[in-house]
Amino acid sequence: MNLALKKASTRLNELTATEIVAAIEAGETTCEAVVRACLEHIQLREPQVQAWQYLDREQAIGQAIALDKSGRRGPLFGVPFGIKDIIDTVDMPTEYGSPIYKGNQPRNEAACVALGRKAGGLLMGKTVTTEFANRFPGKTMNPFDPARTPGGSSSGSAAAVGSHMVPLAIGTQTTGSTIRPASFCGVFGFRPTWGDLRCSGVREAAGSLDTLGLIARSIDDIALYRDVLLGVNPQPVPAHAGALRVGFCRTHVWPQVEPHTQKLLEDAAQKLARAGFEVRDVELPAHFERLMDAHLAISSFEFSRNFTYEIENHWDEISTTLRENRLKSGLECSFERYSEARAIAAQCRREFAPVVENHDVLLTASATGEAPVGLNATGNANNCLIWTTLHVPSVTMPVFKGPHGLPVGAQIIGKANGDRALFAAARRIYSALT
Amino acid sequence: MNLALKKASTRLNELTATEIVAAIEAGETTCEAVVRACLEHIQLREPQVQAWQYLDREQAIGQAIALDKSGRRGPLFGVPFGIKDIIDTVDMPTEYGSPIYKGNQPRNEAACVALGRKAGGLLMGKTVTTEFANRFPGKTMNPFDPARTPGGSSSGSAAAVGSHMVPLAIGTQTTGSTIRPASFCGVFGFRPTWGDLRCSGVREAAGSLDTLGLIARSIDDIALYRDVLLGVNPQPVPAHAGALRVGFCRTHVWPQVEPHTQKLLEDAAQKLARAGFEVRDVELPAHFERLMDAHLAISSFEFSRNFTYEIENHWDEISTTLRENRLKSGLECSFERYSEARAIAAQCRREFAPVVENHDVLLTASATGEAPVGLNATGNANNCLIWTTLHVPSVTMPVFKGPHGLPVGAQIIGKANGDRALFAAARRIYSALT
Repeated sequence: MNLALKKASTRLNELTATEIVAAIEAGETTCEAVVRACLEHIQLREPQVQAWQYLDREQAIGQAIALDKSGRRGPLFGVPFGIKDIIDTVDMPTEYGSPIYKGNQPRNEAACVALGRKAGGLLMGKTVTTEFANRFPGKTMNPFDPARTPGGSSSGSAAAVGSHMVPLAIGTQTTGSTIRPASFCGVFGFRPTWGDLRCSGVREAAGSLDTLGLIARSIDDIALYRDVLLGVNPQPVPAHAGALRVGFCRTHVWPQVEPHTQKLLEDAAQKLARAGFEVRDVELPAHFERLMDAHLAISSFEFSRNFTYEIENHWDEISTTLRENRLKSGLECSFERYSEARAIAAQCRREFAPVVENHDVLLTASATGEAPVGLNATGNANNCLIWTTLHVPSVTMPVFKGPHGLPVGAQIIGKANGDRALFAAARRIYSALT
Repeated sequence: MNLALKKASTRLNELTATEIVAAIEAGETTCEAVVRACLEHIQLREPQVQAWQYLDREQAIGQAIALDKSGRRGPLFGVPFGIKDIIDTVDMPTEYGSPIYKGNQPRNEAACVALGRKAGGLLMGKTVTTEFANRFPGKTMNPFDPARTPGGSSSGSAAAVGSHMVPLAIGTQTTGSTIRPASFCGVFGFRPTWGDLRCSGVREAAGSLDTLGLIARSIDDIALYRDVLLGVNPQPVPAHAGALRVGFCRTHVWPQVEPHTQKLLEDAAQKLARAGFEVRDVELPAHFERLMDAHLAISSFEFSRNFTYEIENHWDEISTTLRENRLKSGLECSFERYSEARAIAAQCRREFAPVVENHDVLLTASATGEAPVGLNATGNANNCLIWTTLHVPSVTMPVFKGPHGLPVGAQIIGKANGDRALFAAARRIYSALT
């Protein structure tokens, strides 16, 4: 098969997870060789990316040697992955992006970590998160321009995959914390249907919105990783039969999208139409704008309860950003306002089904544009917020380049519980646009 | 006010939380005195109850003295509470009812613990849980008869409140883990509308079913504790205006309820009717029986993913009960079956609203009868399973005595998000039946 060496120039750290599994299975390489290639590349790039909160070279190599010797196999066998540092790991510290938890070593291992390992994957290290997966940034820089944000809150996960340090990483999303950094870092990002993937062992931000977020360099890898995290036998991405019906949905936050990005999306919609896709404009009902306020109330109310211990005991170690925004608005939010917000969200979820009834997916912006300059903020998440609150799955695909030559994603939205259909559509759209 | 001493025979450990707060506020007692009274009673009763997984007498007294000195006040000021040992605490170990986690000391504190402390409550200790809040029992005995189960999985929480060791305790419920032990131990138990109370820091069993469970000795205490755990200013239980419409709902598991308990409930329904309540029989749609299988698929699928780390690394330290039941069925359950089960549950949730439209609450059994003899199992949870899966709130009230003079609860069911209306109904029904 000679998969690993399909191009003489392809290095092991540049392979996708699917390719690594196949290459090891074919005896063309080993887990140790893959991990060493990744570590070598990390050594080269890390000073300018700073994707890792914790990474122990010897520990990673030791795991790889043990895997090679084990005789085990598995759908993720030999694949190094990164885990956002708000997710508990038994053999690496978990600091939640906060000085309060410096050196914290959990005894529990999050379900998503253990499921990755069960499938033969190798936990390379912990990737940088913003403080408690909120907005105060960690040290990570955009792998395409260190003066720019990698996005957040899954900053290190997106940057590590985008800079070919590992093929897979897990993030989370409560607003736009996977899709946005994936767009900024030139990779595929996937936010699943809410409730599908277990968040046990993941520090909760706002449970009624939180999901895991998967980051990879191919849609096949996203689909593979999802099945591993569901704890089921992986199935290949299904083929989409017939014409693909794409609803182009600018949403009410379209004016926030940069003109250059608007043009990229308009052109992409036309290109898809020319390629035989059924492309039509879709408008969300006007009252879906209320999802913005509803999301703020839900996320802030829940976040400010979840972090009661830190608020009461470590107030001075919480960033001003977090204190003055999420926590303040959450502590001021009444239960009545929170309940009303949940009712609005539930109503929009019911109303969304007929909106997309005649479409396979919606096409929309992943972010306002390229990663903004500056490392003090992680960019505008409004292009993700609507879909997050609707609990529907979404994928961002690295299909565009912005005015500075930096990556810009296209986001496609699926139906609740239609994650695999979304992957099928993503593959066809990605092929048509690249 | 002389609340604490309202009856000469009332000891401090017998007061409800509401009474403790009022007595301290009135200067009639102190937190230290309350805690010392509780500790004295624990010393007396613990050998025959074994409610506590962790309790340090000096630590509790130290906390009480500090609270008294603090000059602080709060809606739970001075009230000792117990926390089920699947809930993380920063200053007490958390062992999840499993030898795998012996001595585990988390650095995080669960939201529900921190919210209780923020309100001025005092964490007395950790109450015994079954293994991972599943079915393999801990050491706890029924406070009314040590040869009988206290119920589970919140065994220690129910037994501690039932034996007047503390006025409040938190449990959890994934099937019937709060309502059933509360019924067996002669106390009020409350399972909230799913999603209302944050479970951050609570070891997840099956997240799409899990809730906290509140255990107390009065409905006012339940309402107070709920507000504290919502992080809002407590409001008194509202008065229910007009005739209370009670649907008597035997459910399809009525044949599993013991004849004596059936008679108690039939008599109670008649008594309520005589007292002016509008009591009518209510039947659930026949296909709601499918909730039994749906619950099994959902809980087992999710549980077996959440415990991947333990399954992969500590299989021999997991009980045969857990391995052979929950884990085996969960690992064998396909994603298709799981998804179908979730769809059935979602459909029944939608269909439940019209079923209860013309009723304020439903009246049903909390358990099949008195706590069964034997400490190797925790009793039949089927009378709770339906309501748990429907995500609706429920309260069990200690209103009956079984053939052996042991407590038997009556369960009333509210509408989703109608928790406070449920409390209003509970108070009236409790008064009418006792």
